[in-house]
Amino acid sequence: MAQSISLIPVRGIPEIKPNDNLVEAIQNALSQNSLTLEEADILVCAQKIISKAENRIVDLNKVQPSPYAHTLSKEVSKDPRLIEVILSETTKIIKMDQRKPEKGRLIVETRGGVISANAGVDASNVSGGDMVTLLPIDSDESADKLAQGFKDRLGIDVAIIITDTVGRPWRDGLVDIAIGCSGIKALKDYRGESDSKGFELNATVMAVADEIASAAGLLMEKADSVPVVIVRGYEYETGGNGAKELIRNPEDDLFR
Amino acid sequence: MAQSISLIPVRGIPEIKPNDNLVEAIQNALSQNSLTLEEADILVCAQKIISKAENRIVDLNKVQPSPYAHTLSKEVSKDPRLIEVILSETTKIIKMDQRKPEKGRLIVETRGGVISANAGVDASNVSGGDMVTLLPIDSDESADKLAQGFKDRLGIDVAIIITDTVGRPWRDGLVDIAIGCSGIKALKDYRGESDSKGFELNATVMAVADEIASAAGLLMEKADSVPVVIVRGYEYETGGNGAKELIRNPEDDLFR
Repeated sequence: MAQSISLIPVRGIPEIKPNDNLVEAIQNALSQNSLTLEEADILVCAQKIISKAENRIVDLNKVQPSPYAHTLSKEVSKDPRLIEVILSETTKIIKMDQRKPEKGRLIVETRGGVISANAGVDASNVSGGDMVTLLPIDSDESADKLAQGFKDRLGIDVAIIITDTVGRPWRDGLVDIAIGCSGIKALKDYRGESDSKGFELNATVMAVADEIASAAGLLMEKADSVPVVIVRGYEYETGGNGAKELIRNPEDDLFR
Repeated sequence: MAQSISLIPVRGIPEIKPNDNLVEAIQNALSQNSLTLEEADILVCAQKIISKAENRIVDLNKVQPSPYAHTLSKEVSKDPRLIEVILSETTKIIKMDQRKPEKGRLIVETRGGVISANAGVDASNVSGGDMVTLLPIDSDESADKLAQGFKDRLGIDVAIIITDTVGRPWRDGLVDIAIGCSGIKALKDYRGESDSKGFELNATVMAVADEIASAAGLLMEKADSVPVVIVRGYEYETGGNGAKELIRNPEDDLFR
C-alpha cells in the first residue's frame, strides 16, 4: 500500500563545469542542506547539469552553418549557427512552423529518440552569451554512471532520472519528462491486475518516470537553482531498460 | 524559496454514487486517515469520482447507435454503442487508427476542449458490466463547486485539481493531466524573470497543474482505491481561469 511521497529540493549546487564530479557536487550540497540520501531514493537531475559535466556545450561563435542551416534559419527565424547545432543533434524533422516563422518552432527527433523543440539545444542558464548546451549523448548511460557513482561512494542503491522540459501537442505550457533513467522501470504495467471492482484493467501502462520527472519539475524553478530533487517514498520497480522504454515505436505512433 | 512538497494519499473513500456529497465522503476518509486539510493544500481528485457524483454514467444497454457509429465501430473495432457515447462527447475527430483497427484508437477533441482517446469515456472501476463514465460536463466548474464546499465546511481555501489519465503522441505509457482546476493558476509564467546567470528567461511557461496531476498520479494506483491525493507545500499562484488555460489555441497548435 503506497504511503506518502516527499519531494525534497537540493539547493546550493554550484555551477557545474565540464568534467566536474557530479556525485561530489551533489553530495556536498546534500550535506549543506543536512540531507542524507537513503536506499531507494530517486534522485531527479535536470539535464542541464549532466550536459555541462559531460562538456556538451557549444560556442556558437565556432559554428559554421551549412547552406541548409541558412535556408532553415529563415523559415523559422533562428540564428543559422543555432540551426546548425540543432541539425547536428537531429535524426528527423517532425514539424516546423513555416506559417509563423517568428515563433521559431522546430520540432525534431533527437539522436536519443526523444521528440522535442530544437533538439533540446538550450541557451538558458549557460555562462557566456553565445554558449548553448546539447542533450547528453546517451542519457540512460549518464544515469547509470551517476547511480554507480553513488553506489561506490555511499554503498546504497538510488534510482536516477534525468529530465528535460518540453512542450506538447494540444496543450499549453511545458512539462518535465524523463530522458534518462537508471535503477527504475520507466513504465509500470497494470495489465492483468484487477480494478477495485474486480474487473481486469486493460491497456493501463503508466509512464511513471515521466510522472516523477513532472513532480520534481514543480521544485526545479527556472530562476532558482534547484537542478536536483530527491523523490522519497515512491515504491517503484527496479530494472527496466532506461528511459528508452518511454519512446513510442514509430510504427505504433499515430503522430509520426 | 520552495520547500519540500508532500504527496499524501487519501484512502478509504467508498464507491461514489450519483448525487453523493463528495465533500462529506472525502472529509470522512480524511478523518479515518487522521488527516486534516490545511489552508492552501491542493486536493487532487481523479475524474472518475467527480463523474460518478455528477451522474455522468451511461448504461450501454440503453444506447441506440447511429449508422455512423456502426461505420466507425468497424474502423476501430469497438462496440458501436460505446462509439455512439464517445461521439456524443466529441466535437472533432483528431485521429483514428484505420491501419490497425484492432488497436481501437480514436483520438478526439471533447466538448471541454481536452484531446484524448475515446473522449474520456471509460469502463474501468464502474459497477455493472455495461456501465461507462463520461467526463464532467465542465470540470472547472466541478472543481469550483468542490472548493466552495470545503470553504463552507472548513472555512479554509484549498485548491482543487481534477485529473484524467491520457496517452500522448510520441511517448509510451499514460500520464495524468489536469482537466479541471479551481483556486490555482494552471500555468506559471517565468517570462521576464532572470535565470541563475542573470539572463532573461524566454518562452518559459510551465504547465504546473499538469505537473501536479502527474505527481498525484503516482499515488492513484489503478488497482488500489486512491482517487484523492493531497499535495501539500507547493507554493502556487491563486486565481487564473481554470484548466481551460492548458488547452492550446488551435490556431497556434502545430498538431491540429
